[in-house]
Amino acid sequence: MNHSKNEIGAEENRTYVSEAVIRRLPRYFRYLRILMREGKMRVSSGELADMMHITASQIRQDLNCFGGFGQQGYGYNVSYLYAKICELLGVGAGIRAIIVGAGDLGRALVRSSMFAKRGVDITALFDVNPALIGRTVGGVMIRSMEELEPFCRENPADMAVLTLPKDQAEPVADRLLAAGIRGFWNFTGKELHYDDDEIVVEEIHLGDSLMSLNYRLCHPSKDAEKRQAEIGSDT
Amino acid sequence: MNHSKNEIGAEENRTYVSEAVIRRLPRYFRYLRILMREGKMRVSSGELADMMHITASQIRQDLNCFGGFGQQGYGYNVSYLYAKICELLGVGAGIRAIIVGAGDLGRALVRSSMFAKRGVDITALFDVNPALIGRTVGGVMIRSMEELEPFCRENPADMAVLTLPKDQAEPVADRLLAAGIRGFWNFTGKELHYDDDEIVVEEIHLGDSLMSLNYRLCHPSKDAEKRQAEIGSDT
Repeated sequence: MNHSKNEIGAEENRTYVSEAVIRRLPRYFRYLRILMREGKMRVSSGELADMMHITASQIRQDLNCFGGFGQQGYGYNVSYLYAKICELLGVGAGIRAIIVGAGDLGRALVRSSMFAKRGVDITALFDVNPALIGRTVGGVMIRSMEELEPFCRENPADMAVLTLPKDQAEPVADRLLAAGIRGFWNFTGKELHYDDDEIVVEEIHLGDSLMSLNYRLCHPSKDAEKRQAEIGSDT
Repeated sequence: MNHSKNEIGAEENRTYVSEAVIRRLPRYFRYLRILMREGKMRVSSGELADMMHITASQIRQDLNCFGGFGQQGYGYNVSYLYAKICELLGVGAGIRAIIVGAGDLGRALVRSSMFAKRGVDITALFDVNPALIGRTVGGVMIRSMEELEPFCRENPADMAVLTLPKDQAEPVADRLLAAGIRGFWNFTGKELHYDDDEIVVEEIHLGDSLMSLNYRLCHPSKDAEKRQAEIGSDT
């Protein structure tokens, strides 16, 4: 990956991009991919809003953060918008990742098409289990944890996917930071917090998601509609 | 699961619980579990705030939605608060789930301790692959899709975990709704939307999370701090 801060054209002029907008950008990517696959050339904010179950004004507002991409009364050029969203999201930036932890989850992730679809290249899997080392999963070799530092020196990676046990999350993350990795996709359940702004952590807590579902199953309520409206409108 | 709306004591009197609060409750569950394991009896909102990297006032505000649970200058009784959060989140409500799709992800989920820890009982796995049917994974039998309706009649489930291919998400969800299931934990990538408020969908889009991370890796910016503050303070 090219680490220049100016690789995205409008970077210097863009307005502040909120966390909520960043959360929504990948949804645009998904829906624009569908439109691309359908061969659709042009889409209005209204049509896109219907597909995405948000409002047209939300869409216009979101895309305005990056300079608009659309023309009044004319809609969006699908392939142009898709290309711009891809650019913003680093598809094509050559992001390289390693996965640490080749258990059920690590192996399921490496075998999925998720990374390739988003332009992320998985260069290695690491595990402590001698029975796994040397095996290949999803085309990627499982290496021993002793190889972590030398491998990262030879093959700099942008991020590490952490699918190892919770109690190993912090010590392994420290080793990875020392080896030059700046991003963590953290499935361990142990949250990672750093004061350094350059270190980026994306936490995945599947159990939290399950419990939100449980809450809503146990409280099938008057609030459901109001909450739904909230999800659609946060900015 | 007992479907009575009054099973939670303060249910009728509670104030509106926002989506953001519901999203944070499972984090309270996780951190209180750690305190429980450490044998800690009492915790102040300040200590909990430090652990959770949010503000003490956020904690007081969140817990006030459910009647408080704490005493001024005295802090929270850990086991009481934990029990209350468990109750709110349906731990102990006997939630039953089936998993549809016994591929890599479905099998990884059923083998994890995630469901058991949260009091969710997985009663069956379903798949279309004849090679898998009859096998047992994580103590749960894989059944054929033909058994879906008769099984659900005999063993009512509260939710279905959807780990099947995207193009099957809607038709299978329709069958599940007809079989009485009201909750979906949806990993398929195909979003499910229903007008019926009684149907609860929790979407998991791992790819979206990956792309948010990519965005932040590609835009290591002046915005990072501001965004961090936002995450901590949304209500």
